[in-house]
Amino acid sequence: MRTLNVALGERSYPIHIANGLRTRPDLVLPHLKSRRVAIVSNETVAPLYLAEVRTALEAAGVGVTEIVLPDGEAYKDWATLNRIFDGLLAARCERSTTLIALGGGVVGDMVGFAAATFQRGVPFIQMPTTLLSQVDSSVGGKTAINHPLGKNMIGAFHQPRLVLVDIETLGTLPDRELSAGMAEVIKYGLIRDPSFFAWLESHMDRLMARDPDALAEAIARSCANKAEVVAADETEQGVRATLNLGHTFGHAIEAGLGYGAWLHGEAVAAGAMMAAELSQLRGWLKPDDVARIEAIHRAAGLPVRGPGLGVARYLELMAHDKKVEGGQLRLILLEAIGRAVIDGASPQGLIEQSILERVDA
Amino acid sequence: MRTLNVALGERSYPIHIANGLRTRPDLVLPHLKSRRVAIVSNETVAPLYLAEVRTALEAAGVGVTEIVLPDGEAYKDWATLNRIFDGLLAARCERSTTLIALGGGVVGDMVGFAAATFQRGVPFIQMPTTLLSQVDSSVGGKTAINHPLGKNMIGAFHQPRLVLVDIETLGTLPDRELSAGMAEVIKYGLIRDPSFFAWLESHMDRLMARDPDALAEAIARSCANKAEVVAADETEQGVRATLNLGHTFGHAIEAGLGYGAWLHGEAVAAGAMMAAELSQLRGWLKPDDVARIEAIHRAAGLPVRGPGLGVARYLELMAHDKKVEGGQLRLILLEAIGRAVIDGASPQGLIEQSILERVDA
Repeated sequence: MRTLNVALGERSYPIHIANGLRTRPDLVLPHLKSRRVAIVSNETVAPLYLAEVRTALEAAGVGVTEIVLPDGEAYKDWATLNRIFDGLLAARCERSTTLIALGGGVVGDMVGFAAATFQRGVPFIQMPTTLLSQVDSSVGGKTAINHPLGKNMIGAFHQPRLVLVDIETLGTLPDRELSAGMAEVIKYGLIRDPSFFAWLESHMDRLMARDPDALAEAIARSCANKAEVVAADETEQGVRATLNLGHTFGHAIEAGLGYGAWLHGEAVAAGAMMAAELSQLRGWLKPDDVARIEAIHRAAGLPVRGPGLGVARYLELMAHDKKVEGGQLRLILLEAIGRAVIDGASPQGLIEQSILERVDA
Repeated sequence: MRTLNVALGERSYPIHIANGLRTRPDLVLPHLKSRRVAIVSNETVAPLYLAEVRTALEAAGVGVTEIVLPDGEAYKDWATLNRIFDGLLAARCERSTTLIALGGGVVGDMVGFAAATFQRGVPFIQMPTTLLSQVDSSVGGKTAINHPLGKNMIGAFHQPRLVLVDIETLGTLPDRELSAGMAEVIKYGLIRDPSFFAWLESHMDRLMARDPDALAEAIARSCANKAEVVAADETEQGVRATLNLGHTFGHAIEAGLGYGAWLHGEAVAAGAMMAAELSQLRGWLKPDDVARIEAIHRAAGLPVRGPGLGVARYLELMAHDKKVEGGQLRLILLEAIGRAVIDGASPQGLIEQSILERVDA
């Protein structure tokens, strides 16, 4: 078992990574405030793993409430969040009840936000079952739901007590979601870890073939990268923003098509390519760098172009992104593969050009 | 101008108390992250004070967005909260926008929760216009909305940057709301400040006649008491719970009648009388103490008995209160006037008796 520590003072927590962790209540028990949990999952993941998690916890003397949500980004809204509150209150869950998020990023973000706000805050544990959630939302404590006018517009910073990454759960993950998760893995190489990027270039075939050792290595290095960034900047005042490489462009894609049409990781991949184009237009990346970035995204089965929403629509949606400050768009660009920069000085014309070169007509 | 400091480390903030503070942008400006605010008020308060606050801020170069909500505890729900998010997003408010809560406790609690969760947290300022909100929700950072199964079930701890208590706004407060606010003022005397309780006994006539000096003194001493408690226990792990004197009984009254039928302070007053009865049954308070507590509540125009919901219904609703831990009801009782105790050991029979003695048949 690989174990990382996310160093956040009194809010520090461990991430364990190995096969079979979903049935390891011995890892869970030390982090509970009382012997009472509520497992929140979705209609896709619950039939696969919820009974195993529940049975193992009950055998260890823990009382379990189950809450099963509909699956998909389209349900990352208040109405679905409220089903968590309804379930918790109907079962008389208390302030000492620990919530367990069993599922992907949507479940993790929503359960995290429910934990942040139920009775003004209860503990929670992440059991992420998708690659994306294992390398992204499991680290950092960002929780949120969407609003019709913007993604993740309503949320909180709320750190989990524990993250259990069970590699075995990737066995049931659809190919498209494996690829989408890989977009975030690639991102860590791009923004701050050139040797990891090179390792990914040489291991992408094994990763896409779901080799467990390669996956565990990729997840551990991704989480370690994210944990270092988050520890340096928990509430995104500075360097943490670099984790948003591709995300401002990507959010425009997701919002423009309607949440759920593209997977988050697919939108981030196309967004990262737009950021790479802009980085080249700014004179930082070489054409060769952009080609490598495109090649690794293709090897991971990811889109390298965005949908043709029209440049004006892209800009309008990007202007609504949370990363806007004082009306100035802040974008994450690359000075080199492995070195990100927060940029607020790209001329409008270059931003438009970078989008144009990466969308379908 | 009286100024108190709520000492919470990097989340410390000042409370200013005086006449006319609603038009003092010089007090507001140092606390803004950018020259952009959103003033949130309700349909009762907005016609009285919103234009003055807005004009003063605009004259000082601050951009102002207005959001006006329906008035009343019945609207302390997600649908109304969402109107704040809608307004903020429609006006393209950003992470650096400061929210200003102009109104009573419902507005303060909702705007605080909106500020805690809009884009994962933006700054906010309280301009409480009711006695209750001036002495209660303006100090402590508790924010929340109600859920059909319980009051304040969804919320967050989020401290304001500044509280401006304008005594003049009490001039338009209905008598019934003045009384309701006085319930919380009396509570501070009861739980930790016997000399303040004695001062209140001798000044209640002047307070109910809205003497500005007496009101300023009562508000300042109330806020100072609450600030000391909150500074010692920001997230209610211990002593802060004593602020809930009368609240568990009171929440049962509010929930049992439907939120809004009784004012919060009225329910707290009747709840405090039940807590006083129980404290006498436990052998702590003397009959004379209970008589003094009843007399001061009567002098403040407050109810000293609860509605006849039936004891079983009281107990059921109290069991749903947030203050329940491990299935054990924790009640705030009085060892003496001016000395509260957190009690989890009252026999069920005594709790029932204390309710019976204080409800209408």
